[in-house]
Amino acid sequence: MTTTPVWSVDPRTGKQREQVAVEATPQEVDEAVRAAHAARGPLADATVRAAFLRAAAALLDEAAAHVIEAADAETALGPGRLTGELARTTGQLRAFADAVDAGAYLDIRIDRADPALSPPRPELRRYKVPLGVVAVYAASNFPLAFSVPGGDTASALAAGCPVVVKAHPDHPATSELCASLLRRAAVATGLPAEVVSVVHGFDAGLELIRHPLVAAAGFTGSIRGGRALFDAAAARPVPIPFHGELGSLNPVVVTPAAAAERAEEIGSGLAGSVTLGVGQFCVKPGLVLVPEGPDGDRVTGELTKALGETEPGVLLDHRMRENFVAGVRERAALPGVDAPVTPGSGGEHTVGAGYLTVGAGNLLEGGAYDLLLEECFGPVTVVVRYADQGEAGAVLGRLGGNLSATLQLSAAETEGAPGPATELIGQVTGLAGRIVVNGWPTGVAVAPAQHHGGPYPAATSHSTSVGGAAIERWLRPVAYQSVPDALLPAELREANPLGLPRQVTGG
Amino acid sequence: MTTTPVWSVDPRTGKQREQVAVEATPQEVDEAVRAAHAARGPLADATVRAAFLRAAAALLDEAAAHVIEAADAETALGPGRLTGELARTTGQLRAFADAVDAGAYLDIRIDRADPALSPPRPELRRYKVPLGVVAVYAASNFPLAFSVPGGDTASALAAGCPVVVKAHPDHPATSELCASLLRRAAVATGLPAEVVSVVHGFDAGLELIRHPLVAAAGFTGSIRGGRALFDAAAARPVPIPFHGELGSLNPVVVTPAAAAERAEEIGSGLAGSVTLGVGQFCVKPGLVLVPEGPDGDRVTGELTKALGETEPGVLLDHRMRENFVAGVRERAALPGVDAPVTPGSGGEHTVGAGYLTVGAGNLLEGGAYDLLLEECFGPVTVVVRYADQGEAGAVLGRLGGNLSATLQLSAAETEGAPGPATELIGQVTGLAGRIVVNGWPTGVAVAPAQHHGGPYPAATSHSTSVGGAAIERWLRPVAYQSVPDALLPAELREANPLGLPRQVTGG
Repeated sequence: MTTTPVWSVDPRTGKQREQVAVEATPQEVDEAVRAAHAARGPLADATVRAAFLRAAAALLDEAAAHVIEAADAETALGPGRLTGELARTTGQLRAFADAVDAGAYLDIRIDRADPALSPPRPELRRYKVPLGVVAVYAASNFPLAFSVPGGDTASALAAGCPVVVKAHPDHPATSELCASLLRRAAVATGLPAEVVSVVHGFDAGLELIRHPLVAAAGFTGSIRGGRALFDAAAARPVPIPFHGELGSLNPVVVTPAAAAERAEEIGSGLAGSVTLGVGQFCVKPGLVLVPEGPDGDRVTGELTKALGETEPGVLLDHRMRENFVAGVRERAALPGVDAPVTPGSGGEHTVGAGYLTVGAGNLLEGGAYDLLLEECFGPVTVVVRYADQGEAGAVLGRLGGNLSATLQLSAAETEGAPGPATELIGQVTGLAGRIVVNGWPTGVAVAPAQHHGGPYPAATSHSTSVGGAAIERWLRPVAYQSVPDALLPAELREANPLGLPRQVTGG
Repeated sequence: MTTTPVWSVDPRTGKQREQVAVEATPQEVDEAVRAAHAARGPLADATVRAAFLRAAAALLDEAAAHVIEAADAETALGPGRLTGELARTTGQLRAFADAVDAGAYLDIRIDRADPALSPPRPELRRYKVPLGVVAVYAASNFPLAFSVPGGDTASALAAGCPVVVKAHPDHPATSELCASLLRRAAVATGLPAEVVSVVHGFDAGLELIRHPLVAAAGFTGSIRGGRALFDAAAARPVPIPFHGELGSLNPVVVTPAAAAERAEEIGSGLAGSVTLGVGQFCVKPGLVLVPEGPDGDRVTGELTKALGETEPGVLLDHRMRENFVAGVRERAALPGVDAPVTPGSGGEHTVGAGYLTVGAGNLLEGGAYDLLLEECFGPVTVVVRYADQGEAGAVLGRLGGNLSATLQLSAAETEGAPGPATELIGQVTGLAGRIVVNGWPTGVAVAPAQHHGGPYPAATSHSTSVGGAAIERWLRPVAYQSVPDALLPAELREANPLGLPRQVTGG
């Protein structure tokens, strides 16, 4: 039987570093899913689950130097960024452990029997149970926080769902290392190692989404890849939920008053957000509406200066670099599109940051200009110069769903002075999952009120993949009607032995 | 241009009563959806929305005599049942008005900024916004509570979503009457009539699910019809959530100890549940596991007696009657299947209730016997005689997802005495959305802790279509980051001017 090797590649040189694994055969995928399915029972113990998540965080912290070294060698994201990403990752694991302890995610509701109602109401006690094995498709751009030990994995495990991760080919060695740490943490807390496993290979990913024992999936990646998996999930004999975070333009609107007041600050802030992580964030601002005229020119002037001074950077892999260079070239070739700072090839292995400009009038022609409404992954943004609010609104009206939308407003506008701000807030609420005012969309806080999702194609469901609510994706409600106390799960018993929060109606 | 008439038919005679409408053309569907979409703005006012729902309930109550007469003439469900169904329907409308007032469905979460964290946390305020126009596919078997004025419509309107209902062909006159009352209630409370409209016709239903401005759908009906619409919803350029309640066997397990203790009570209770509404409930028990031996014989003896004494009934339409007669005949023809009381044709327009029996051994052979694991809509159930708990468990292991699963247990088993009860509770939790002990699944209480859903094919999502949580289907979260108070929606402002419940983290 032939095997397909999985190589770890250094994006700084394009050279293979080491063979990490082989691509999983259909039989190996089947074995991984069956072993995960068999591990559901032990994972049903919430106390053990929480201990496991904390042990995993501790082992990742202990191995921080190795993890960061491995991730940097494969992704070129740099130790600084990866140190922060590891902290985010272990923070998520611990936050979900806390969520398991707190128990609010079970959304317990108890309706006492009411024989006086017509018809009489029986006793009902509802909580949520885990769905079963969850398939996680790791992201290229977050080798830790959206990969093997990332938020999808942490939230699924917290919900009581074993996980099979389809590793991203950009960081197989990091994936294997993190998986070994998670599995060691499982065993150390009395769980089978198979509560988490990793498979490699494109075909393995398809096998996984089609496996009858896979109950749900989480995905972070491209629109094309995500849609293919979404379609496969929907076409199964038993369809399963597919929570995908796909692509997003993350529009920014600079009002004339904001440009008049803070042009330079906006221009340099924008440059920082566009180039953070070499432009490889899901929430990189990809389309910026800047007013025509001298204040808008000051914004782009600052952007030109800041981007012109940015050092070339290394993208996650060479295919991504080629796509970026080609994507920028195709956009820049459109009539009326200028490139004040030409992004693109910045050396054999690096790319330079830059931006394109286009008039709103051109963009609104549609046709070939619709390409400018598609995400271009990497350190580039498209500045659209608009004449008035009607034109800005028309451009926003052409956009699909987004993870974020950002408004740059003047001081008076933030105080509610009459102006375009209120209308803009309403319009962008319709097209994004997160609205930012006078900040930048990059840097997605892990917090209870966070929402990292949005209308399609930003996401394939209305759930979030960041923050406390991410756990809701892996659970389904079950109601118990007139079930005697002795037969109820402990979570629902009258005496509330686990001390869980519950919403009680009647009696 | 040719039009296709929509007739109201009397199922007691099979005769056309009157032409109610014509099937909607694609243009008419488009107009209905566009008008609904344009009505989103006015419906965004929660106070008006709640008043509208209450006004609709009041108008339905006032018109009760007409509504019940219309529904009975088209469905033969009888004034008694329809009086109850109307009360359930207006109760739902009022309950969702209360839910709008209470505001818990907004799931407001506020995270205060925390500059001391690393990275610093910005202020985040999250609530939920309505998805947009909702398509509702009405059920045959509930002309009120799961149709034009039913739970899907009420919960979508409560969420702020305008509704276009695809009426069920079994009760077009009732649908038109109810729509006119809902629209009158809308106008009376200052809303455009177009917040609710009705279209007729199979093709109109397909147009509806494909319309770009339709944002979500609710459905109650068959597996075949529901799956076709689910597939169409998933295949759209922008996929939308499809909350379908499709088919369910609703297994019942009678333990040997329960049969020994309460054989006659179980047999007669089962007969009542199977024949309620002429067996046309989504939660009719369709598969009953009864132990072999004399105690089990007493259960079936009582079932034989009770079903033998049941008067023939009228099904909702003649196609349904033909499917029922053919479905029973096909099942009864399987080797080893007996029909102690033969269900089927009970006259030109009626059907008689009955049941089939089969040994668990036969059923577990699979192949042709798998037909017994498919829902047969109408007053019939399949009694499976089992030798021991292993065999009962093996039969349960063959089942797909269900809306409900019911256990008949002995007194000692309900007190937690060692026996099969605990294991059975665990097993049926894995395959149903609601677990009933020593009751019957028919009669789905409208209550906060209710869950009317279950693993596929019981439902196409993990949501409920009955009870307070049904509103969650029509909303998506939006997070506001560092948005000044003056620009926040009132629901999220610091002073909480609407007095809404909120979960606050930090500071």
